[in-house]
Amino acid sequence: ARPKVGYFYSGKSNLDFYKDYIKEIKVDDIKSLPVVVDESTTVYDAIVTLFLEDVGTVCVVSKGLLVGVVSRKDFLKSAIGGVDINKIPVGVIMTRMPNIIVAKPEESIIEAAEKIIEHQVDSLPVVQDAEVDGVKGYKVVGRISKTNITKIFVDLGTKASI
Amino acid sequence: ARPKVGYFYSGKSNLDFYKDYIKEIKVDDIKSLPVVVDESTTVYDAIVTLFLEDVGTVCVVSKGLLVGVVSRKDFLKSAIGGVDINKIPVGVIMTRMPNIIVAKPEESIIEAAEKIIEHQVDSLPVVQDAEVDGVKGYKVVGRISKTNITKIFVDLGTKASI
Repeated sequence: ARPKVGYFYSGKSNLDFYKDYIKEIKVDDIKSLPVVVDESTTVYDAIVTLFLEDVGTVCVVSKGLLVGVVSRKDFLKSAIGGVDINKIPVGVIMTRMPNIIVAKPEESIIEAAEKIIEHQVDSLPVVQDAEVDGVKGYKVVGRISKTNITKIFVDLGTKASI
Repeated sequence: ARPKVGYFYSGKSNLDFYKDYIKEIKVDDIKSLPVVVDESTTVYDAIVTLFLEDVGTVCVVSKGLLVGVVSRKDFLKSAIGGVDINKIPVGVIMTRMPNIIVAKPEESIIEAAEKIIEHQVDSLPVVQDAEVDGVKGYKVVGRISKTNITKIFVDLGTKASI
């Protein structure tokens, strides 16, 4: 659907127009590429991936399906908590399905931003329903973070009229 | 100044009204409390502060003036990099003045969000000019993060008209 902008008068406040406009922007429009490691990856190698990709969270998959997420905070906790990060697989320290908050590509970015705030996470895996060898789950197709939200906030606040 | 909302017609697009509205919101209106440690604090104790306060960045002060910042990423790098986090003071691993991006309370949140994106940081110390024992510098009066920006984005997108 076309974002509602223009010069018409309908009794709505301008903030209502803004809300209508924002609701048309979908997770799919602003999502970033996902950063994914296998469940068997060591904590150390997952941290290296985190730094190389310069992200705050990595998704953990098994046979192509999402099984967990690990944040920078989780990694820091392991690193100072006496975990042997060179031996322990990331699967041991991750937050595990079904306790993962996800976003769907067709969701509005407002819904995604609300989930980020409500569940106090830095980012959400963007997922699609999938089935592998008869097992139903999620395929990871992107991620949406506070960085994406902050960027769109800056874009809306500074760019020329759309 | 009063935010510009209303039902008037002036040839501006609704997004322009949004931009005018956003520009009136200042860092001072949405900033969080600062989390501050002394330069002599060990890296380990600073990490404990980070977890206790549940923030992504701590400010480092010396004699009441800002001398550095340390992010979760910096801490993780030290923790896996063979630094003796129980002995080394946080002053050794921090990003040091004048290489710190700050925000002033009277800045618009759009300016602050732009700095966060441009300099790829998670948060900015909110500071005021100060002088201690003849030394000029910054007093830390708050912090503004991607979380604050994401919250205001959700507020603007979901709340009833203002």
